[in-house]
Amino acid sequence: MNIETKPCTSIGRISGIAVLALLTTVFTALAADDAVDYPGDYRHWQHVKSMLIEPGHPLHAAFGGLHHIYANELASTGYASGSFPDGSVLVFDLLDVTAADHAVTEAGRKVLGVMQKDAARYADTGGWGFEGFAGGDPEQRVVGADAATACFACHQPHADTDYVFSQWRD
Amino acid sequence: MNIETKPCTSIGRISGIAVLALLTTVFTALAADDAVDYPGDYRHWQHVKSMLIEPGHPLHAAFGGLHHIYANELASTGYASGSFPDGSVLVFDLLDVTAADHAVTEAGRKVLGVMQKDAARYADTGGWGFEGFAGGDPEQRVVGADAATACFACHQPHADTDYVFSQWRD
Repeated sequence: MNIETKPCTSIGRISGIAVLALLTTVFTALAADDAVDYPGDYRHWQHVKSMLIEPGHPLHAAFGGLHHIYANELASTGYASGSFPDGSVLVFDLLDVTAADHAVTEAGRKVLGVMQKDAARYADTGGWGFEGFAGGDPEQRVVGADAATACFACHQPHADTDYVFSQWRD
Repeated sequence: MNIETKPCTSIGRISGIAVLALLTTVFTALAADDAVDYPGDYRHWQHVKSMLIEPGHPLHAAFGGLHHIYANELASTGYASGSFPDGSVLVFDLLDVTAADHAVTEAGRKVLGVMQKDAARYADTGGWGFEGFAGGDPEQRVVGADAATACFACHQPHADTDYVFSQWRD
């Protein structure tokens, strides 16, 4: 029995490892499917608006600096209609600043915030996927699975503008 | 003689008026030819960079507020090469700001500054035509014939970058 059992146990162990590996692969694939894309060409998108958040502002720790909002072509249509179609991408490009001699100039990138619309995929967060790339580095994701609490919680009250804070200005 | 002279004098006056009118027309046409075009679609051009000029800055009276630089497609190529081809247009979009609660937000447009490259037409000012549109109004030109003193005098030392102050940033 032992002789028979041992091989069975080994096979069981191997199978267990295989199943774990398979599950890991599946979940990784799912996570990759849900992952927000890095918007490689966003600097050539529509500039929507800008804002400077200074020391003393309640959001300074997270968003202090000068940020620019950029919209891809699909997202640009959403500002007028109030509803952003799937494929819309909005970028929150947060730059550090140098304040000197009564002027505020742009410095290095702090974080690149991204909202990517896919109503089905991101149904739990208003149809938007959220991600932040530290320093604008595609490899440095700072939101990941925390989109609901780290991002959507603040966007949720803005359902009337499809959870988007920014407004188009001429 | 008087009878003859009077008609002659009248004709002379009419001719004088006609010549004046003709010259006015010619000069107006020349002025119109040299006039910098209003860049109707600049808000959809490439956003190059931004800067905030605060009270106390030596240029605050003229340029105080948050400005964004936009470049049309031809001008976008100039930042890399250091030479801007004819047809390049750069816009200095100066917005008033509201500074409150440790945040600086965009307000109304103060002036829309425009540089338009035409090496032959604007040979006296580095190949660039300069204009400012108060409030962004195409009808409110504030530079006109004063480009050399009102604009180019400050740009002239920057011949090494084709008289352009702004630099491209990623």
